[in-house]
Amino acid sequence: MDGARVAGALVLLCVVGGCGGEPGGAPADGSEPIAYAIAIHGGAGTIPKSIEPERRDAYIASLEQALGIGQNILDQGGKSLDAVEQVIRFLEDDPLFNAGKGAVFNHEGGHELDASIMDGATLGCGAVAGVMTVKNPISLARGVMERTQHVLLSGTGAERFADEQGVERVDQEYFFTQRRYDALRKILEGEAQAEAVKGTVGAVALDRHGNLATGTSTGGLTNKMFGRVGDSPIIGAGTYAKNGTCAVSATGKGEEFIRHGVAHSISILMELDGLSVDEAVERVIGQTLREGDGGVIAVAQDGSIAMGFNTLGMYRGAADSTGRFEVVIWE
Amino acid sequence: MDGARVAGALVLLCVVGGCGGEPGGAPADGSEPIAYAIAIHGGAGTIPKSIEPERRDAYIASLEQALGIGQNILDQGGKSLDAVEQVIRFLEDDPLFNAGKGAVFNHEGGHELDASIMDGATLGCGAVAGVMTVKNPISLARGVMERTQHVLLSGTGAERFADEQGVERVDQEYFFTQRRYDALRKILEGEAQAEAVKGTVGAVALDRHGNLATGTSTGGLTNKMFGRVGDSPIIGAGTYAKNGTCAVSATGKGEEFIRHGVAHSISILMELDGLSVDEAVERVIGQTLREGDGGVIAVAQDGSIAMGFNTLGMYRGAADSTGRFEVVIWE
Repeated sequence: MDGARVAGALVLLCVVGGCGGEPGGAPADGSEPIAYAIAIHGGAGTIPKSIEPERRDAYIASLEQALGIGQNILDQGGKSLDAVEQVIRFLEDDPLFNAGKGAVFNHEGGHELDASIMDGATLGCGAVAGVMTVKNPISLARGVMERTQHVLLSGTGAERFADEQGVERVDQEYFFTQRRYDALRKILEGEAQAEAVKGTVGAVALDRHGNLATGTSTGGLTNKMFGRVGDSPIIGAGTYAKNGTCAVSATGKGEEFIRHGVAHSISILMELDGLSVDEAVERVIGQTLREGDGGVIAVAQDGSIAMGFNTLGMYRGAADSTGRFEVVIWE
Repeated sequence: MDGARVAGALVLLCVVGGCGGEPGGAPADGSEPIAYAIAIHGGAGTIPKSIEPERRDAYIASLEQALGIGQNILDQGGKSLDAVEQVIRFLEDDPLFNAGKGAVFNHEGGHELDASIMDGATLGCGAVAGVMTVKNPISLARGVMERTQHVLLSGTGAERFADEQGVERVDQEYFFTQRRYDALRKILEGEAQAEAVKGTVGAVALDRHGNLATGTSTGGLTNKMFGRVGDSPIIGAGTYAKNGTCAVSATGKGEEFIRHGVAHSISILMELDGLSVDEAVERVIGQTLREGDGGVIAVAQDGSIAMGFNTLGMYRGAADSTGRFEVVIWE
């Protein structure tokens, strides 16, 4: 994406209302403390406001359904890790998003999927990169976290691990969508530039037990080189969670998010400088990164949600125990 | 490694003398400013002081030769990136170390190599994971940085990139050493626990132009799962460099270094909290990590060198423009 094309785009923060409660206690304004909170994203990028109304409505309906799945788990006292995993599985299964079914094509016309998950209570984390036959990479990432000594498994090794785990397998054709195929064809035929990334999915959650969790899943970049690993499976870049600070999931130009260690930086800014989650997200998205790079969602220990991006839009939503439930794209 | 076995091991910092010059100017003690500096490591872990003298001397001789290669490049006004790459190529070629020739065996009896490199001047970075036929993974990582839009290439995709780059290729037998084979056999036959990682190699440098650079290369963990990616190719975990703060290369239990974003944390601690490189390394190695996890080498913008570890020893060396030139293991 040309940075000039998004000149003037604002870093939007906390647009879903009610952010900024006092960490570690009841909100200063006397409002109800937040018992649980969840935010989700379906990617940031050049999302034109001229998008067809039916298409826009389809995104919103899907995000609302995903958010409801997560909220329901949290409301019933479920774990933030379960909410994150189930929300992402739903979005992976929806061909609208660039994760699981609907993943973009790499340069060679195939699909390679990346995902990661992290438990803020233990700093346990798991990730997979370049998997090609796993229907829900987020669940395989959770398997790496819970059933290996490792954090990241890649390519053939991740596939072999999937063989042992009994996760649902599919062939590459499963991931096919005409829209993503056309996007690759246009780039290969010189009709289009590599499109700004959008469609990566992620979720961050705080549960009633006070535990934070996060996860991210993606098909990566259209026309990416075979074997390219972006930020989504890199703990500290696209995904990070630590009880006491925040849980973060990112979407955008992965290489920039790796270079600047975006997700971990937001946690560290809260820890070292005492920034609120809004301030930390604003610092990284608005100052460290450049316009057009992407965005993040983050939830703090007190349930405050920050959702910042420096692109034209970000598919996203937020809900919490106080009754908040909103899905937006540009606002 | 059992943490109790290294109870009482101290975090050793700056053991190669002369650290702690004032950042950004001439040292406060009136000594000569540091025009260039380099530190190298050959892994941290349970290195018994009872190691055979011939073996100890072989490590020291190899590290001295590697350090000399880097110092010579820097002394002649060469780039820190070149010093880092050439030092690591030398260590990759030496079967003593767990990188390139001499890499450990994975669970399936093969070798999968990881490496990364980062330019502190531009935050440009490149990495490869799970390469199996590349003699010098550090140079392929530099190719990713300089000749692709990506940061990390993995597995088959990294091998295909190597096909295009003309880097020297070898078959898996090239990496064989009896010692590493025996180490795997003992673990598989239940005669030994997975050994503490040692033998990863790395280098950090400040050149006469004021630019920092870092690189890390490894064969990973003996008996690792096929496809396991450790911290060495993860920018922010095992490797990070940023002009104005420091260049860092890590060695140890990779999963812990990923979980805590070790290399990036040291840079951020200097940037946000104004810590010296010694203080930042001590904070992360001595407080964030646990005994037995590993160590790092770091060089700051002013040429100060910190080398901290919480293991029994770390193969390492440091040199700079003031005439310092030392290689040590335990002290």
